[in-house]
Amino acid sequence: MKKQLGASDTFFPVPATLVVSGSGNEANIITVVWSGIVSSTPPTIGISLYKERYSLELIRKTGEFTVNIASADLVKETDYCGIISGRKTNKFSDTGLTPLPGAVVKSPIIEQCPYNMECKVVGEIVETHIDEDKIVENKEKNKIEISKVNPLTYCAGIREYWQLGDKVGDAFNVGKQLIAR
Amino acid sequence: MKKQLGASDTFFPVPATLVVSGSGNEANIITVVWSGIVSSTPPTIGISLYKERYSLELIRKTGEFTVNIASADLVKETDYCGIISGRKTNKFSDTGLTPLPGAVVKSPIIEQCPYNMECKVVGEIVETHIDEDKIVENKEKNKIEISKVNPLTYCAGIREYWQLGDKVGDAFNVGKQLIAR
Repeated sequence: MKKQLGASDTFFPVPATLVVSGSGNEANIITVVWSGIVSSTPPTIGISLYKERYSLELIRKTGEFTVNIASADLVKETDYCGIISGRKTNKFSDTGLTPLPGAVVKSPIIEQCPYNMECKVVGEIVETHIDEDKIVENKEKNKIEISKVNPLTYCAGIREYWQLGDKVGDAFNVGKQLIAR
Repeated sequence: MKKQLGASDTFFPVPATLVVSGSGNEANIITVVWSGIVSSTPPTIGISLYKERYSLELIRKTGEFTVNIASADLVKETDYCGIISGRKTNKFSDTGLTPLPGAVVKSPIIEQCPYNMECKVVGEIVETHIDEDKIVENKEKNKIEISKVNPLTYCAGIREYWQLGDKVGDAFNVGKQLIAR
């Protein structure tokens, strides 16, 4: 039995990301849960911010930002950065999160976040970083171990943070069982 | 220690959604992991499809589609709908997934998916459905129980399906602990 909820922006689960804009002492962190890849070539990410956000001002000024995926142990810091405006406070100092210089853009990445993307407007991903201890290097390419990354996820509408549990399958593989049918 | 991975579209975790386009016998399912809310008022969702996709043809023709969030037990069906093109086969028949009439748009929703959004181009969400047994009704509003929905998540780049584990906090709440600091 289905129940109609009306038009709703409830959507889940999404990565809880920390977006850094500006640079130096002006660098600011905002929690962004409305983000997603929009193109593969070039790798491009879209993020949605309310018009009045300070981060939007900074991104318009510099044309650059970083997207940092929080791990589940950063739940307090992540929630904090979504509650407080950076116009009045320095959220790096407030949370103890550490800015690390990126390789391409001037906005820093966040050291404590296991996965970090450097981006230029319109959202082109120009460099990506991962904690070395979260990958297994093999012949072909670096394999990210999701259980070590332990990404923080967000359930919009329900306003809950969750972490991942178990792997349930390999993509482009588990579905092949239905091809024979 | 961080390691640079170059520009990459690896991003995780995201909901594994089944997007239905067309209607009647022509209704088609495609797996879309590049999706996300882009606006709250009106509720609007963005989905990204490769140019050559059959689903894109159908959506351009009708201006309508539905976004259905798969539960973890639908991992085979979800993966299948991302491997096979609907130009040659009927993926409802192939997978046993059941089309249910929506309330607003002509494209059906998927009965087996616990959460369903009816959308009109440019992605406006015009109606939302949830399985009745996945919510707790309380005075203020319907509360979705994420553990009952058990949404299937996808880790793009790594090509792995995962399910959620434990709740780690309530949003706009757990971060308040840092305000006093």
